[in-house]
This record gives sequence, C-alpha cells and structure tokens, in this order.
Amino acid sequence: PENKPMKSPITLVKDILSKPPITAPCNISIMEAAKILIEYNINHLPIVDDLGRLVGIITSWDIAKALAQNKKTIEEIMTKNVITAHEDEPADHVARKMSINNISGVPVVDDHKRVVGVVTSEDISRLFGGKK
Amino acid sequence: PENKPMKSPITLVKDILSKPPITAPCNISIMEAAKILIEYNINHLPIVDDLGRLVGIITSWDIAKALAQNKKTIEEIMTKNVITAHEDEPADHVARKMSINNISGVPVVDDHKRVVGVVTSEDISRLFGGKK
Ligand SMILES: C[S@@+](CC[C@H](N)C(=O)[O-])C[C@H]1O[C@@H](n2cnc3c(N)ncnc32)[C@H](O)[C@@H]1O
Repeated sequence: PENKPMKSPITLVKDILSKPPITAPCNISIMEAAKILIEYNINHLPIVDDLGRLVGIITSWDIAKALAQNKKTIEEIMTKNVITAHEDEPADHVARKMSINNISGVPVVDDHKRVVGVVTSEDISRLFGGKK
Repeated sequence: PENKPMKSPITLVKDILSKPPITAPCNISIMEAAKILIEYNINHLPIVDDLGRLVGIITSWDIAKALAQNKKTIEEIMTKNVITAHEDEPADHVARKMSINNISGVPVVDDHKRVVGVVTSEDISRLFGGKK
C-alpha cells in the first residue's frame, strides 16, 4: 500500500472544466452572440483573437446592455478585463474568486492566454453536491 | 442572562432579502425590461399583475433569447413556472433550491403570491463570506 500512487485530495480546475470551450471572434454580431448563448445553453462566451487568445467575455447581461443602450458591436459591450482561471488552480480558489467578483463563470487559459475551457458556478456546485 | 431574548441561530430569508423588490408589469417592452436590468444592475426581474402578484420572471438570459429568436413580448419570453422563496424559509434551504434548479435568484412571495423581495446567490454567498 505504501507504493500505491496517491490521488490528490484537492480538486483542480482541470478536473471540472467544460472543454473544448465555445468561443467566438470579436467580429461576430450581437445577434450572433445571443444565438450562441441560447443554442448552447451557456452564459459565458469568451471572445478570442485569431490565435485563440482571450480578448474579452460576453454574457447575457452584456446582450441586455446592448439592447438597453443601443450598442451595436461586440467590442463595445464585452468585458475586456476578464477574470480567468488556470487548469492547475484549486477549484475552491476559483469558487472564491467568482464569489468575490460577483461573476458566475471564468475562462480557463493556458500560459499563452489561449482559452482551453470554461468553469462556471454550476460546475462548482455540482462538485460540492457530489461530495455531500 | 437567563432572561436574555434568544436570537435564532438559523438565518432566514427575511434576514438577507433585497427589498423592496424591483418588479415590472407584463405589458412593458423587452427593451424596457433590459433597461431595468442594466440600470439597477440586477439579473432577476419578477413580473407582476395589477395586485403585485407574481406571474413570471425575466433574466438577462431571456433578453438574449428574445434577440436570438426574434420574440417581441415579455409574455413570450418570461418564465412562468417560477421557483420562489418565503420570508420564513431558512437561507440554506433556498441556497439548495437554487443550486438544484440551477438558478441564481428567486422572488420572495407572501401567502397571497405578492412579491416582497428577491434573494440571489450573491446574497447567499455574502452570508457565507461573513460567517467565515
Ligand atoms: C457582474 S455581472 C452584473 C450583473 C448582476 N450583478 C447580476 O446579478 O448578474 C455581469 C457582468 O460581469 C461580466 N463578467 C462575467 N464573467 C466575467 C469574468 N470571468 N471576468 C470579468 N467579467 C466577467 C460580464 O461581462 C457582465 O458585464
């Protein structure tokens, strides 16, 4: 038993993230972004450049903002200062980050800022639900 | 000290709800609903009848749906089967209800289905944050 490989008791982001991520380029229309959210039943759409690197995030709240304020482009409504997670980060650390910043999901990025997945509060609560 | 009034150790919905609630009638336009969400920085808008009784709920996700599917009225996009809470319900009970149903907020209603407030997962996490 001493030689048995140990499984870390700490759940990491890579154990729970949704991947591959659904992402979009910043030249899509607001209507197209809304369609992606609804079709895939998601609420966090990372916006990426040609190399797949994160440049912003769109949620349904931003779509409502576009409608309310008559904004026309993704650039205008996306949040550019995106809070992200890393695959090797502990899940409870990300949970705290989401709670403090009042957000319900974060893109998971690699060392080159490429989006490799998304973690949402649903993934987190599923985790805690399963542990009970 | 024996006569000191006891404060219940259980946090109830009435201890944490946001009130008065921001609500809207079902004859507002989708654009007006979007404006309310953005102006008040909220994501849950209970829709009420003339007597203030709950008939549905609108979130920014429903606004995105309206745009994606070209829906024109609040009636078409609001969720009619609303999950609610009561003022005397324990907060952790509501937290579980939200997690199970995958929602981030519920209207708080009285015995006549009148909306008296809203509780969101933000209110809940503030609670747990404060308890640490
Ligand atoms: C903070 S909420 C504001 C709405 C309100 N507090 C609610 O109840 O939902 C929505 C905003 O957060 C932004 N957002 C979502 N996830 C984010 C993330 N990982 N990093 C930065 N901003 C994010 C969205 O782009 C959107 O503008």
